[in-house]
Amino acid sequence: MLGAKPPRDRNLTRQKLSLDKQARAAALGQKPAILWFTGLSGAGKSTIANLVAEKLHVAGKHTYMLDGDNVRHGLNRDLGFTDADRVENIRRIAEVAKLFVDAGLIVIVSAISPFHSDRDMARQLVEPGEFFEIHVAASLATCEARDPKGLYARARQGKIANFTGISSSYEAPENPELRIDTAVVDAETAADQVLALLQAHR
Amino acid sequence: MLGAKPPRDRNLTRQKLSLDKQARAAALGQKPAILWFTGLSGAGKSTIANLVAEKLHVAGKHTYMLDGDNVRHGLNRDLGFTDADRVENIRRIAEVAKLFVDAGLIVIVSAISPFHSDRDMARQLVEPGEFFEIHVAASLATCEARDPKGLYARARQGKIANFTGISSSYEAPENPELRIDTAVVDAETAADQVLALLQAHR
Repeated sequence: MLGAKPPRDRNLTRQKLSLDKQARAAALGQKPAILWFTGLSGAGKSTIANLVAEKLHVAGKHTYMLDGDNVRHGLNRDLGFTDADRVENIRRIAEVAKLFVDAGLIVIVSAISPFHSDRDMARQLVEPGEFFEIHVAASLATCEARDPKGLYARARQGKIANFTGISSSYEAPENPELRIDTAVVDAETAADQVLALLQAHR
Repeated sequence: MLGAKPPRDRNLTRQKLSLDKQARAAALGQKPAILWFTGLSGAGKSTIANLVAEKLHVAGKHTYMLDGDNVRHGLNRDLGFTDADRVENIRRIAEVAKLFVDAGLIVIVSAISPFHSDRDMARQLVEPGEFFEIHVAASLATCEARDPKGLYARARQGKIANFTGISSSYEAPENPELRIDTAVVDAETAADQVLALLQAHR
């Protein structure tokens, strides 16, 4: 009976998966992580996050960006902007980020994510050392003066409800892994700071 | 003024992302795809899907598995098993699978996914040629005889509502890219058929 196959039913029901997060990350030649960019609308999160993605790509790393555009138009298209929907929006982004970390990737999240509790929830989903909270800091006045999408103007006119900084609060991180003051540092320098942060913890 | 930096605000708001799906997939050395395994509970979906993941890993490909375990306990933990919740469960899995394809990965979905309309929705989310519907076919009698998790027995006792095959319908695919009859083909052979399918379309 040596070499005989096990009964088909056992074969189909007791298969154990040996391919895990470590194996996937090793095959990609990297340690997975979440780079979580938080800050007001217009602070510069997406600009810096995109530069970080490009620089990591050039360095041979494999990344994926989760932001409002690719999530709000798909997975989270059923959600609005009430506080409850914002919490659910961030919960889903965090859970998806965890799946990408499990896949071995470096996930770059760009989301206003105004509440402490939601960002802490995201941090708790992954292993210690895998979550990097990056506060893209700019004053409300600076963001409102930039207003790249005209959102602040519309919020001031009362045309957008629950707008962070105007009619909804932003809770700034107290101990982020990195704080970037975009009134002082340009996007290139900021992206390099993020790469240095990641490098220092690998 | 040659070499002068553009004004900071422009720098922060007009950055264009050059890193796209094609660039990510090329860096991973593969074409992204969704391998969507559908079939009754106990048909052998997860067993074959896990073998496919292992074989692709050995072949140097980068994959990620989305199944009930890693999604129902996280992203979809707010969902139950009513028809509406099942539809939302599959919608979210499909949207997340799309994000993984956008990241350049080969996504392996293992889900009963009993309804035509949901599987077609998943197919429509990605580009033509990226979606492979794989019907893991086994008769209800066969699956019920295996009953690896004791779920059919509990469903027959009325302890599980809306159980596919017993109290909820399963709509078998009419034109899947591959149909595997697990009463005839063992898991190893089935996994090799999936790899051959993928190879033939690359």
